[in-house]
Amino acid sequence: MDPRTRNLKLTIAYDGTRFVGWQRQASGESIQGLIEVAVSRLEGEPVTLHGAGRTDAGVHAEGQVASARVTFAHDCETALRAINAQLPPEIRVVAAEDAAAEFHARFSARGKMYRYQLANVAVPSPFTRAYAWHVPDILDLDAMRSAAAAFRGTHDFASFQSAGGEVSTTVRVLMRSAFVERDGLLVYEVEGDGFLRHMVRAIVGTLVEVGRGRRLSRDVPALLDGGSRAQAGATAPAHGLILVKVEY
Amino acid sequence: MDPRTRNLKLTIAYDGTRFVGWQRQASGESIQGLIEVAVSRLEGEPVTLHGAGRTDAGVHAEGQVASARVTFAHDCETALRAINAQLPPEIRVVAAEDAAAEFHARFSARGKMYRYQLANVAVPSPFTRAYAWHVPDILDLDAMRSAAAAFRGTHDFASFQSAGGEVSTTVRVLMRSAFVERDGLLVYEVEGDGFLRHMVRAIVGTLVEVGRGRRLSRDVPALLDGGSRAQAGATAPAHGLILVKVEY
Repeated sequence: MDPRTRNLKLTIAYDGTRFVGWQRQASGESIQGLIEVAVSRLEGEPVTLHGAGRTDAGVHAEGQVASARVTFAHDCETALRAINAQLPPEIRVVAAEDAAAEFHARFSARGKMYRYQLANVAVPSPFTRAYAWHVPDILDLDAMRSAAAAFRGTHDFASFQSAGGEVSTTVRVLMRSAFVERDGLLVYEVEGDGFLRHMVRAIVGTLVEVGRGRRLSRDVPALLDGGSRAQAGATAPAHGLILVKVEY
Repeated sequence: MDPRTRNLKLTIAYDGTRFVGWQRQASGESIQGLIEVAVSRLEGEPVTLHGAGRTDAGVHAEGQVASARVTFAHDCETALRAINAQLPPEIRVVAAEDAAAEFHARFSARGKMYRYQLANVAVPSPFTRAYAWHVPDILDLDAMRSAAAAFRGTHDFASFQSAGGEVSTTVRVLMRSAFVERDGLLVYEVEGDGFLRHMVRAIVGTLVEVGRGRRLSRDVPALLDGGSRAQAGATAPAHGLILVKVEY
């Protein structure tokens, strides 16, 4: 039996620009790795952190969630401050709490919400350049909205995953898949019970091809439930993607 | 007579984080210097750029305006693209146009609008840390609003300027001086016919002292129209300040 008695739940925001992604890698700074070092220092021995979503290099998060078994006696507020003091300013633990013994950041997750930001302007703003994909082309937003709606519901998203994902099924349920315009950005909002590797970025790549008129919105449903990865659009760049929230 | 016949007006956005400020300095990259190099390359000879406001090191801009006499034949759209291609992504010319012969970005300005962003939260967001001053203290927002209102109208702002400004009068007119809450930030918005050196940052420093309870909002009017710099609050950090717009 693991003698560790506390199950720490951390909610984490990060600017992913300069990191190799959530997961520890052979080289380079990972978000998981940096937080593990900070938590381990508090614990006095190595701690493993389980993240809800393994965001890729360059992907950002407003509400990533991670859990870890610990034994230290510090209250959550003190732990939060101590962990943040060890982290670079691009990574902030925004909440720390004691979770139920059975809670696991990844396996307990019931859903996730992502946002993908597009700067559909001639000249990209210096303030959003690191958080939005610059697409200067004229986009058919009506066609994009209509195509986005086709992703809602229960579908086999096999054509929208990259190799390397380890999943038993490629069927996912999307509760939300829609565009909104906010602060001068075109924002794709998507919420689902789970996401395959690169799934949001492949969907956005496909939707932008629809917007550019290189693909018809009525051809999108055929990509679902039986299409192949080669038929769907290119993977949109990482830096426009933000993990907004994990639902439990 | 200057043989140059065009009067180019540029509207410029920049993330001021890593620059020495608008103005050319003995060392370090300035925004003025970098744009001058880009415009001069297009012109084929040195061009001097006149900016509406000489923002300090670390201060940002959404709508800085600059003017320059040029003779090149490129249309404004082509010039904009050519200039941006020479600039780092932190600096973007967002508009280029031909202005009337008598237009001068600084001397023709009738007013300016600034925004000062405060992150009044325990844990600052990784996404706004470069654009907002982190003030974790509990602030008395009612007192701050009331003190902000005292700055509106025509006043002698001598107590709110730093040494080094070259001005004939320290009287300025503020049309707006108020707080709004936006996207989780506490934002001070100020609009006036002109601003003294460090004036917005000295006002914000004073208002935050009021918010912290270290100064009474009813004592603020006495700082205007006859106070000394030593009596007003400390200068707030540069990175929360954004030059939003120049009025002509």
